[in-house]
Amino acid sequence: MDYMYGPGRNHLFVPGPVNIPEPVIRAMNRNNEDYRSPAIPALTKTLLEDVKKIFKTTSGTPFLIPTTGTGAWESALTNTLSPRDRIVSFLMGQFSLLWIDQQQRLNFNVDVIESEWGQGANLDALASKLAEDRGHTIKAICIVHNETATGVTNNLATVRRILDDLRHPALLLVDGVSSICALDFRMDEWGIDVALTGSQKALSLPTGIGLVCASPKALEASKSAKSVRVFFDWNDYLRFYKMGTYWPYTPSIQLLYGLRAALDLIFEEGLDNVIARHSRLGKATRLAVEAWGLKNCTQKEEWFSDTVTAVVIPANIDSSEIVRRAWNRYNLSLGLGLNKVAGKVFRIGHLGNLNELQLLGCLSGVEMILKDVGYPVKLGSGVAAASAYLQNSIPMIASRI
Amino acid sequence: MDYMYGPGRNHLFVPGPVNIPEPVIRAMNRNNEDYRSPAIPALTKTLLEDVKKIFKTTSGTPFLIPTTGTGAWESALTNTLSPRDRIVSFLMGQFSLLWIDQQQRLNFNVDVIESEWGQGANLDALASKLAEDRGHTIKAICIVHNETATGVTNNLATVRRILDDLRHPALLLVDGVSSICALDFRMDEWGIDVALTGSQKALSLPTGIGLVCASPKALEASKSAKSVRVFFDWNDYLRFYKMGTYWPYTPSIQLLYGLRAALDLIFEEGLDNVIARHSRLGKATRLAVEAWGLKNCTQKEEWFSDTVTAVVIPANIDSSEIVRRAWNRYNLSLGLGLNKVAGKVFRIGHLGNLNELQLLGCLSGVEMILKDVGYPVKLGSGVAAASAYLQNSIPMIASRI
Amino acid sequence: MDYMYGPGRNHLFVPGPVNIPEPVIRAMNRNNEDYRSPAIPALTKTLLEDVKKIFKTTSGTPFLIPTTGTGAWESALTNTLSPRDRIVSFLMGQFSLLWIDQQQRLNFNVDVIESEWGQGANLDALASKLAEDRGHTIKAICIVHNETATGVTNNLATVRRILDDLRHPALLLVDGVSSICALDFRMDEWGIDVALTGSQKALSLPTGIGLVCASPKALEASKSAKSVRVFFDWNDYLRFYKMGTYWPYTPSIQLLYGLRAALDLIFEEGLDNVIARHSRLGKATRLAVEAWGLKNCTQKEEWFSDTVTAVVIPANIDSSEIVRRAWNRYNLSLGLGLNKVAGKVFRIGHLGNLNELQLLGCLSGVEMILKDVGYPVKLGSGVAAASAYLQNSIPMIASRI
Amino acid sequence: MDYMYGPGRNHLFVPGPVNIPEPVIRAMNRNNEDYRSPAIPALTKTLLEDVKKIFKTTSGTPFLIPTTGTGAWESALTNTLSPRDRIVSFLMGQFSLLWIDQQQRLNFNVDVIESEWGQGANLDALASKLAEDRGHTIKAICIVHNETATGVTNNLATVRRILDDLRHPALLLVDGVSSICALDFRMDEWGIDVALTGSQKALSLPTGIGLVCASPKALEASKSAKSVRVFFDWNDYLRFYKMGTYWPYTPSIQLLYGLRAALDLIFEEGLDNVIARHSRLGKATRLAVEAWGLKNCTQKEEWFSDTVTAVVIPANIDSSEIVRRAWNRYNLSLGLGLNKVAGKVFRIGHLGNLNELQLLGCLSGVEMILKDVGYPVKLGSGVAAASAYLQNSIPMIASRI
Repeated sequence: MDYMYGPGRNHLFVPGPVNIPEPVIRAMNRNNEDYRSPAIPALTKTLLEDVKKIFKTTSGTPFLIPTTGTGAWESALTNTLSPRDRIVSFLMGQFSLLWIDQQQRLNFNVDVIESEWGQGANLDALASKLAEDRGHTIKAICIVHNETATGVTNNLATVRRILDDLRHPALLLVDGVSSICALDFRMDEWGIDVALTGSQKALSLPTGIGLVCASPKALEASKSAKSVRVFFDWNDYLRFYKMGTYWPYTPSIQLLYGLRAALDLIFEEGLDNVIARHSRLGKATRLAVEAWGLKNCTQKEEWFSDTVTAVVIPANIDSSEIVRRAWNRYNLSLGLGLNKVAGKVFRIGHLGNLNELQLLGCLSGVEMILKDVGYPVKLGSGVAAASAYLQNSIPMIASRI
Repeated sequence: MDYMYGPGRNHLFVPGPVNIPEPVIRAMNRNNEDYRSPAIPALTKTLLEDVKKIFKTTSGTPFLIPTTGTGAWESALTNTLSPRDRIVSFLMGQFSLLWIDQQQRLNFNVDVIESEWGQGANLDALASKLAEDRGHTIKAICIVHNETATGVTNNLATVRRILDDLRHPALLLVDGVSSICALDFRMDEWGIDVALTGSQKALSLPTGIGLVCASPKALEASKSAKSVRVFFDWNDYLRFYKMGTYWPYTPSIQLLYGLRAALDLIFEEGLDNVIARHSRLGKATRLAVEAWGLKNCTQKEEWFSDTVTAVVIPANIDSSEIVRRAWNRYNLSLGLGLNKVAGKVFRIGHLGNLNELQLLGCLSGVEMILKDVGYPVKLGSGVAAASAYLQNSIPMIASRI
Repeated sequence: MDYMYGPGRNHLFVPGPVNIPEPVIRAMNRNNEDYRSPAIPALTKTLLEDVKKIFKTTSGTPFLIPTTGTGAWESALTNTLSPRDRIVSFLMGQFSLLWIDQQQRLNFNVDVIESEWGQGANLDALASKLAEDRGHTIKAICIVHNETATGVTNNLATVRRILDDLRHPALLLVDGVSSICALDFRMDEWGIDVALTGSQKALSLPTGIGLVCASPKALEASKSAKSVRVFFDWNDYLRFYKMGTYWPYTPSIQLLYGLRAALDLIFEEGLDNVIARHSRLGKATRLAVEAWGLKNCTQKEEWFSDTVTAVVIPANIDSSEIVRRAWNRYNLSLGLGLNKVAGKVFRIGHLGNLNELQLLGCLSGVEMILKDVGYPVKLGSGVAAASAYLQNSIPMIASRI
Repeated sequence: MDYMYGPGRNHLFVPGPVNIPEPVIRAMNRNNEDYRSPAIPALTKTLLEDVKKIFKTTSGTPFLIPTTGTGAWESALTNTLSPRDRIVSFLMGQFSLLWIDQQQRLNFNVDVIESEWGQGANLDALASKLAEDRGHTIKAICIVHNETATGVTNNLATVRRILDDLRHPALLLVDGVSSICALDFRMDEWGIDVALTGSQKALSLPTGIGLVCASPKALEASKSAKSVRVFFDWNDYLRFYKMGTYWPYTPSIQLLYGLRAALDLIFEEGLDNVIARHSRLGKATRLAVEAWGLKNCTQKEEWFSDTVTAVVIPANIDSSEIVRRAWNRYNLSLGLGLNKVAGKVFRIGHLGNLNELQLLGCLSGVEMILKDVGYPVKLGSGVAAASAYLQNSIPMIASRI
């Protein structure tokens, strides 16, 4: 009935797709509906309004596109830019690399600012480049908020400050795939022009909605952007928004109801509490890694990610073997090292609808696996370090006090 | 808990999204999984193999793209054609119109062959055009197998014969959105180069998978096609197929398991039996329409569609009022007339996982609504005509004999 | 994946278990929970309060027993009576027969008042018997409100009037299995001492909760009732009610949440509207039966049941063959004739979460089956008669106006 | 939408109801069906056959009664015994106490052999009592295999040996509620006459089926047993078994399909592997308790239970506070101490569909809670002890090698 069933729960600690809360699974457990009936627009209206809160924007316009993160990227780029436009993009890991690849294949003229994998975006280089660009030939800055391959979080407030200091008009396009709804993210305050994420990340839904939010400036840019686009064209959405029917083509009824439930849960917990929970889980994970005597792939504390931790393991061990054993023996799903860090790191995703005891179960599994593969870990050491911190910081569950 | 809940089952008779069978709803009722574990490729492998049976192809290569039918269209076009390529496209209703609009926005040079809405594709015009095209400037023929707006089914075997007779090398791209898995469809036999459908149509799943199948000739064409594409690029899929990991970006785990269940059900019933069932449902609907004294929007029997019937109603009645009452009073979802036939027709979708008694319930509802809006129908007349036919033609349920 | 799967929806028209609404299926789609956590008592408290509304009682005490209707019967009897107690019980069909069988096996001294199957309880005989019973040796009157085998509804108000007129103190125990939540039922107004139903009937849940409601007089009687009981003992519940933990043994978590959703739906529609809907469905069914030229097993209009119709078919046809064909060919589930009426009647259940078009689909199926088995029905005749009535009486769906 | 929702998964470690595997939740996610159609008997037949494997019996007759464990007890007793029959019953905790209470209320003449809570059944006392009973006045021995309140497992093989050595014909009735399908249990080999469990225990289903299995000797006894019974009467089942319709009253369709899925999962894993997994989880838990410096309520190793561990905590701490904090702060559900051990022990249930990392997550939670309530635990110590053992003993997952 399942492929490769194992006893008990699967411990899902890849950085996406993530665990779906039961109330969301329930909400999606339904037959199709006519998306042209009055019910679906009524539902959609609430979603568009509430999704803005997740992006922390009041002036942005959200699009719920039936696609993945890769499609959301394409939507952000093709709606705001024209072929051969000059853009600046940061390379620091596999996902920023893939986005840059897409930018190039879409025929933009990409200035890549590369960092060592494990380091954050080189914002000094950005400042120089922008300072030199007196003619404002740079049309957009593309930055991944949280590089999922290395667990690096970039400082978007600084990016905005650099742009503001230089009064540079470039659009700021942000991949918030593994950040929005988990890390501190402020679309309006940080002057982000296009922000995007995927439903299967911190929103804790199945894959299938690319959530893209456009600032008024981005919408304005879309009027003159010459990139060819149809499926991803915001304009089709805007026409249907005006008509009040919302959908230029068929959405997933199940995901709309699922998104409603996901947002309800987030608001019930409180978005700030959700972010604080991710902060706790991130810190606990890093404390465990430290206790195991292992290195975090992320080189400086300022870039530490609260949604994913890439753990570097000694050269004599193949990190893929760790991921394989996690799956084969412990029903634990960990993330592989990708590309440059393949075999060198494994990744623990700690985002979405997750609590502390789930994480500690995962960490205890990692300890056993490390021992399995010959790394001399002291069993219990990571859990001890993490729980020493957590025991002091977990709040009471509001609905249960 | 629901938006605009009504007692009892919703009677879903729009031509998509359609009713999802319970076993498929069950199969999708699950948490996310790591799509990089060995389980998902193992599952995907079976899906790709079995989807080919639905298209009736052995030589084709299927792609399960996380998108809608509109995205599947885009995938078919951009992977096989280059900007300014000359293509021939048939206009006969709202969906062929939308596809042509997409073709033009993607910068193809489209020769539109228009038919009156309610008529099929003008294949004589195609023959002439191709005959004149001695230099083979026409790169592709784009045709909608079943125009969902008017209930018109085109004869693809004839299209192929015309191409063959003239030895014209144009690619044959077919929108099978409201036909595949419901109407007789033979990708290999009819020499179709790209065929596509959406999961929410006759496959009876939620929206979210654009199923696209490419012939070897289409794959060959994709190597030189210059249309810009990233998200929809087949090449990314082909690279991952080769690696055995299958997915260039995150698929919906739920839809993969749902597709598995949907295919299992189709094979259990037998694809030919599924098609015969649609034939029965289509004929029964047309007999009812006739008994009511109403006209089928489809002008000739050769074009009658077994998946959707567009019913023309007298000029003094607004067909939107019929659809509105169906929803407001009878918990019945019917399709609106679109564009040129707005207000003039309403549509009964009879595709997907549906049986005869469900259809008769719908028809009895339509009778009452017709009376509601002042059309002098004899209550029971349509049901009588339909059931006189059905009582003679419904087979025993194989698993229950 | 299923046993004997057929295409499309199963049309479930047995008089229980009945169709479960999608929101209720969703609500039950969950993992287990600790029933001793504060959440389950909090939920239970709302259920006990709201279940009373369904019974139309303010003074009654409800018990949600993990059992079936048969268990609910046993609970009603053993908690209020002592072995050898004299009771009066009405026999008019298979379910009243089974209850009487239980009463006898539980060692009560049962005065059976028998009616022909198809007639209601003989209340004149009751009046005589009670009038003669000056010494009040009769401890209880047991009556099935709606005999599911024959589709006979008894007049409980009259029963109460007879008891009151004679100032007879006998307890009034009522089987409301196929009536409560579908027919007019007034526990307090009609002075019912124990009323009971099962979750799988008009409440439209799975089997698993026997809902029993006891008047203050019944609770008082339970203090001296000497029948041996443990699992069914109300006293264990009352002790846990007092403690606020509610459950003497483990309830089904899923059914509790399901019952919450079921009650929410009923209150959203309005209990009186639910009852009116059943009245429409009952009348429509009877009009169809009449149009087919068939007889209702129920002999007089005063006993017509709005939840189940037993249709008598000519002696040359075996009604089991009708039920068999309904299942084998039409994916329609009808009720068999039972015991004395086996082979002679088939039953259409029209209770629970059901709407008019569902019923008309069923009726159109019955017409085809009648033809299949050689009964000379005019196809469409029953649907015509039913829909002529329904088209005038179906209200708009409140949430959709 | 839920009562007292908390973020992430609830960690369910009460000794029942236990975690339901996703495939079982899926299997139960369905509408009702007619239980008199041919599909349900066909399904039931497989269930009855396969349930016998779980009890390790070939000669036994299983009954799937719509009730709880309490009802299953009643079924075992009333079908085999007559009022005032002398029986021997062991008291060693809350659940054996409740069963004895039931035995007394059902009017049996109960010789109670009491042990200190935390000790197993006093089998020497049994031997003496039986030896003295030359007239065979003792009709049955009632024993709880695994006392859930204290985590004590009794040796059934020894009970059988005592009976055999003395050639005593008393029936052996065994409560296997928290043992069957988790602990080594051999109905035929150990000569058990009635064995029973509840669906919500190691079978990992919702509450709702009391599974009772009767030996030929028990069935024979049922013919002369005079205890009053109707709902629980085996004879009604046996009549319907003979007819091939199986059900004297309405079963839960959902639970039947759920049981099918549960059995499939158990056989896929292998019943012996399931039992070995419980053995690992039990041992790991006890190692953690030892590492924390706490006492197991179970006084000797021979009685250690692999399904539940009752942990004794120092007199200055109220164990209820531990359970409360687990729920309020960690979304962890632990079992309270009951009756004599209320406030003194808390319980960790480790039965059903559970794996090692789930348990380690729970243990890490318990460590933090112990610290919360002032017990000087070394964080990580229990996890370290448990995982040192587990890392050496967890097998590879068969389907994933």
